[in-house]
Amino acid sequence: MSQVYDRVALIGLGLIASSMFWAIKRAGLANEVTGYARSKATRETARRIGLCDRVCETAQEAVEGADLVVLCIPVGVMGAVAEEIAPALKPGATVTDVGSVKGHVIQAVSPHVPDGVHFVPAHPLAGTEHSGPESGFAELFDNRWCLLVPVADSDPDAIARLRALWEGMGSYVDEMDAEHHDLVLAVTSHAPHLIAYTMVGVADDLRRVTDSEVIKYSAAGFRDFTRIAASDPTMWRDVFLSNKEATLEILGRFTEELFALQRAIRTGDGEHLFDYFTRTRAIRRGIIDAGQDTDAPDFGRGKANT
Amino acid sequence: MSQVYDRVALIGLGLIASSMFWAIKRAGLANEVTGYARSKATRETARRIGLCDRVCETAQEAVEGADLVVLCIPVGVMGAVAEEIAPALKPGATVTDVGSVKGHVIQAVSPHVPDGVHFVPAHPLAGTEHSGPESGFAELFDNRWCLLVPVADSDPDAIARLRALWEGMGSYVDEMDAEHHDLVLAVTSHAPHLIAYTMVGVADDLRRVTDSEVIKYSAAGFRDFTRIAASDPTMWRDVFLSNKEATLEILGRFTEELFALQRAIRTGDGEHLFDYFTRTRAIRRGIIDAGQDTDAPDFGRGKANT
Repeated sequence: MSQVYDRVALIGLGLIASSMFWAIKRAGLANEVTGYARSKATRETARRIGLCDRVCETAQEAVEGADLVVLCIPVGVMGAVAEEIAPALKPGATVTDVGSVKGHVIQAVSPHVPDGVHFVPAHPLAGTEHSGPESGFAELFDNRWCLLVPVADSDPDAIARLRALWEGMGSYVDEMDAEHHDLVLAVTSHAPHLIAYTMVGVADDLRRVTDSEVIKYSAAGFRDFTRIAASDPTMWRDVFLSNKEATLEILGRFTEELFALQRAIRTGDGEHLFDYFTRTRAIRRGIIDAGQDTDAPDFGRGKANT
Repeated sequence: MSQVYDRVALIGLGLIASSMFWAIKRAGLANEVTGYARSKATRETARRIGLCDRVCETAQEAVEGADLVVLCIPVGVMGAVAEEIAPALKPGATVTDVGSVKGHVIQAVSPHVPDGVHFVPAHPLAGTEHSGPESGFAELFDNRWCLLVPVADSDPDAIARLRALWEGMGSYVDEMDAEHHDLVLAVTSHAPHLIAYTMVGVADDLRRVTDSEVIKYSAAGFRDFTRIAASDPTMWRDVFLSNKEATLEILGRFTEELFALQRAIRTGDGEHLFDYFTRTRAIRRGIIDAGQDTDAPDFGRGKANT
């Protein structure tokens, strides 16, 4: 893989940025990668573990002379940070982001992008339940999708170059518009996260079942919910607040379906339940066939824990 | 590990029974293990892969002379099968089961257990999303909990012996009463399964998002729901119908909490969301500390798919 950019600046040094750094280095996709994090402790950790070729004390310093600037920060602060770095952006540079919501980010960032600087929003569909500068690893994006969400005047060359970067980091790349992106992600990510958070909260609230029982006996399904519900609280607060309409639409449909299944349980309609569960099983098969998960019996995780 | 029973009979040869067979053999816990499955194809598969020392053509034949009979069948047919095997049970034998619901199973099976035969209901909290005779493996129960749910007149020696079997298969063992069991499992397993089934069904229904999009972009959280929702439809239909009250109670609480969070999204109450998500994160830590999952960043699964 050859170099795609001379200099890349990572603003925010959490899970995604740190994984990007290691993936860029793995494939030699940039000559120099600078980094900035608002927290002094994060910057010190980054220096200690060799994350970024140069960790800067300000965001402006980090973006100076950069050919690509990647905003790896919570969706809720994208606008303010874009405004802060705008004066230091190099003419001809590309600004991108990794936010989980695109409509809101485009609204917040676009007004601050100077003439002569390209803006190509993006969203890598990869992550773990961990966060922070030490949680990244080079393989995070391998065989995962990165969605590019060009705005009306995104430059075709700037899009092609960003695509090359993501492919170089191991991703598949697709393009779609912001509204469709936010609906698709409401289904595949945002609603599932809120539902998992809710179920874990219910378990914690239920005084007739002790916390230790919930924890000891979690292997029976609940465990997967807690993994989702362990994701970064700031990031997820911002996601829900900035993808409000699509998330609430999907949650509305979810509640309707849940009520229908509850009714089938209450009335003893076994056929309705059986047919529903048979249909959902087929979707799992599709995901495995598409290479987005393995067929290993992960529920057991027996061998991992011995 | 020394022998616990001379002869064990497994009625039903799916994931749990086949894992029990391999776990019993691994530790030498029984001299002979017989097996029976209603489906001829399953019996033939079992013979082909060496599952059970002897695969029988009838359930009665399998239980004849057995010291322990394990009902490894869907909760909805436990009563009928108990009635069928009752005349062939050896005096002094123990009947147990592996059903996910205990109150209903006790009601259905107890009337058919002959005098002089012990009944000790049980529930191993282990499984995968796979099913059938070829899905079992010896490590399934390692470091997982098995809950014994003795009935009023369960014999202490019979309980102790069954505990030794489960410990020999690698499990931790706890005892609780049926009502409490069914509530705890509604929280840790039954409600999460119904919720996962529902969310996967919603995704499949949504015509504005294509199936291929749902499948390609599933890594962002949805994937874990599909794994849960791929579990055996017959088993889960029976679970919901036979643990109706506890499941509906937990789902009622879940809906209440979900509405409160939806309201926080709608009104832009970021503090409520942030506090809720911070609290649920702590529960995850408890599960990892308790050894019921690993801290590996499983969301990524990057290395498994390369």
